[in-house]
Amino acid sequence: MLAAVTRRNHGAHIAGVTPVTIVQKPLPRLKPGWALVRVRLAGICNTDVEILRGYHDFRGTLGHEFVGEVVRVARAKDQRWVDRRVVGEINLACAGLGFSKLCSYCRRGIPTHCSRRRVLGIIGHDGAFAEYLALPIVNLHRVPDDISDEAAVFAEPLAAACKILEQVNVPAHREAALIGDGKLGQLIARVLHASGMRVVMIGKHESKLRLARGAGIVTLKSNSPKARRADAFTLVVEATGSPSGLALAQQIAAPRGTLVLKSTFHGAAEVETWPIVVKEITVIGSRCGPFPPALALLRSGRVDPRPLISRIFPLQDAVEAILYAQQPGVMKVLLECKASSR
Amino acid sequence: MLAAVTRRNHGAHIAGVTPVTIVQKPLPRLKPGWALVRVRLAGICNTDVEILRGYHDFRGTLGHEFVGEVVRVARAKDQRWVDRRVVGEINLACAGLGFSKLCSYCRRGIPTHCSRRRVLGIIGHDGAFAEYLALPIVNLHRVPDDISDEAAVFAEPLAAACKILEQVNVPAHREAALIGDGKLGQLIARVLHASGMRVVMIGKHESKLRLARGAGIVTLKSNSPKARRADAFTLVVEATGSPSGLALAQQIAAPRGTLVLKSTFHGAAEVETWPIVVKEITVIGSRCGPFPPALALLRSGRVDPRPLISRIFPLQDAVEAILYAQQPGVMKVLLECKASSR
Repeated sequence: MLAAVTRRNHGAHIAGVTPVTIVQKPLPRLKPGWALVRVRLAGICNTDVEILRGYHDFRGTLGHEFVGEVVRVARAKDQRWVDRRVVGEINLACAGLGFSKLCSYCRRGIPTHCSRRRVLGIIGHDGAFAEYLALPIVNLHRVPDDISDEAAVFAEPLAAACKILEQVNVPAHREAALIGDGKLGQLIARVLHASGMRVVMIGKHESKLRLARGAGIVTLKSNSPKARRADAFTLVVEATGSPSGLALAQQIAAPRGTLVLKSTFHGAAEVETWPIVVKEITVIGSRCGPFPPALALLRSGRVDPRPLISRIFPLQDAVEAILYAQQPGVMKVLLECKASSR
Repeated sequence: MLAAVTRRNHGAHIAGVTPVTIVQKPLPRLKPGWALVRVRLAGICNTDVEILRGYHDFRGTLGHEFVGEVVRVARAKDQRWVDRRVVGEINLACAGLGFSKLCSYCRRGIPTHCSRRRVLGIIGHDGAFAEYLALPIVNLHRVPDDISDEAAVFAEPLAAACKILEQVNVPAHREAALIGDGKLGQLIARVLHASGMRVVMIGKHESKLRLARGAGIVTLKSNSPKARRADAFTLVVEATGSPSGLALAQQIAAPRGTLVLKSTFHGAAEVETWPIVVKEITVIGSRCGPFPPALALLRSGRVDPRPLISRIFPLQDAVEAILYAQQPGVMKVLLECKASSR
């Protein structure tokens, strides 16, 4: 099968030179309880770009956002999953990896922090920029028929956005500031808006802010004085994907406010942390999230991510697609991975 | 009266040269509802040293930790406070400042974040390194007779340590790591220990760690491998007073753990924030705290801060005392401010 894999020697990464190559690989092997998924669409995420800059030092097939269909299962009792259209949680934990003795995190019910954790296309497990991928069936969620592939491929980042609803008492806040107008920021803004909040997106790019306004979100240019008003928001979500967002987030967060961190950029930032102490801000790190509410939002149409799609490339053009995804103004880039039916 | 005041031109601060001078000043003037307090003892805090490095750009009499006695009140109905031994909360908020229309924070019951806030010896209000200070009576707490002056002078930082008990669900944690062996760290460790936790203090200075062991606290040198074990603690308190503590705190915090920030050092630190996101850590900024539990701990003897006193200087030697407080190995330095009875 075709797959987009990271090249070995990516320590010497040069800006704009993507150390990714398209190769022919054997089909992934299935462990008991796993399914082979034929990928229909895969999404390029900023994390993929970070990986190419050295994050997690990952070697293998990239990609963790996908929609596909199950073509084979390892155990006969899972036969009902074959032909189902699915999206998948990206963390492989004890149960999925086949360990009968669970680690302390899995025992406590937080397999996303499993001590043996592998992550689809990020840590130790080949990803979705391929014709096929393998995942434990416990990771899979069936996609209802009335969600298109183009919407379903957003399930994983939309679930990450939904995580905030589990971590923050949303009704306690009149409004939220969302710093960052990129892909994840756009989804978070839509999720918070769908939950009934007034959402103010603060961003740098007029074309991206326009997209948000189309979804009912208030927008501010980040260099406007209103976007920098001190203590203005009891809830701030930082999703810039760059170090610059944290200082602004601290500034506009109200005393005793809540600041949700969503950016996982690589590298240190010069940060003053005393405002967190003096203003007694609570900072909440937020990563992966629950798929069922994400699928429910897609099914109801209360969040429609499809306007965020900039372009769809065929899998064999993945290198070009990853370069394109890093261009200014570009939002979600998808890879069409359709293998011929087997 | 005698007072230790910051000099004007302290932008050009040179290490070791303390821009403080001892002056004769008129007695502080009382507003309605205020009391004049004759200071008995005042404590030198790292915040005072930070102020001398430019923090808050404060001009006036330094000092915010004190025990004293009320010698005069502005309103006849407060007469019962005269001669009482008191400690005092340091934030002057709407009510204490005489505003009948409260700001939004005071209305919500968090006067420590009052938008008109002045802070004893830190922001816009003369402090405790003087023979007398003025505070609103709403800020004062009577000191029970069985607490010595030498213990009572720790009430303010001990209250700040007690704040953590309001912010963190202590019974949910088996143990806590406390990074920093300085004055505030020592008090926090004792408060957490008194609340029934196993407390592991991680610090650089053997003499300071020995002090903590004397109070039943487990200690680790910060360069030992055990002190750097990843994901080891569900609760971590950062009280180093320096930028270095945050990275270690993130490292040893468990996934979904809680990290309490207590350090208010001035200046930016190079910090990688992605571990907060990936490990979904909750970071809680923590500043001033409640005096009643602090006084209760002192009264019961469950926390005895007196072994932390390195030396007591007379007020007129405040410059020397502040220099001495910055020497390696020195813990709490007190100023004896006794004015002659009036």
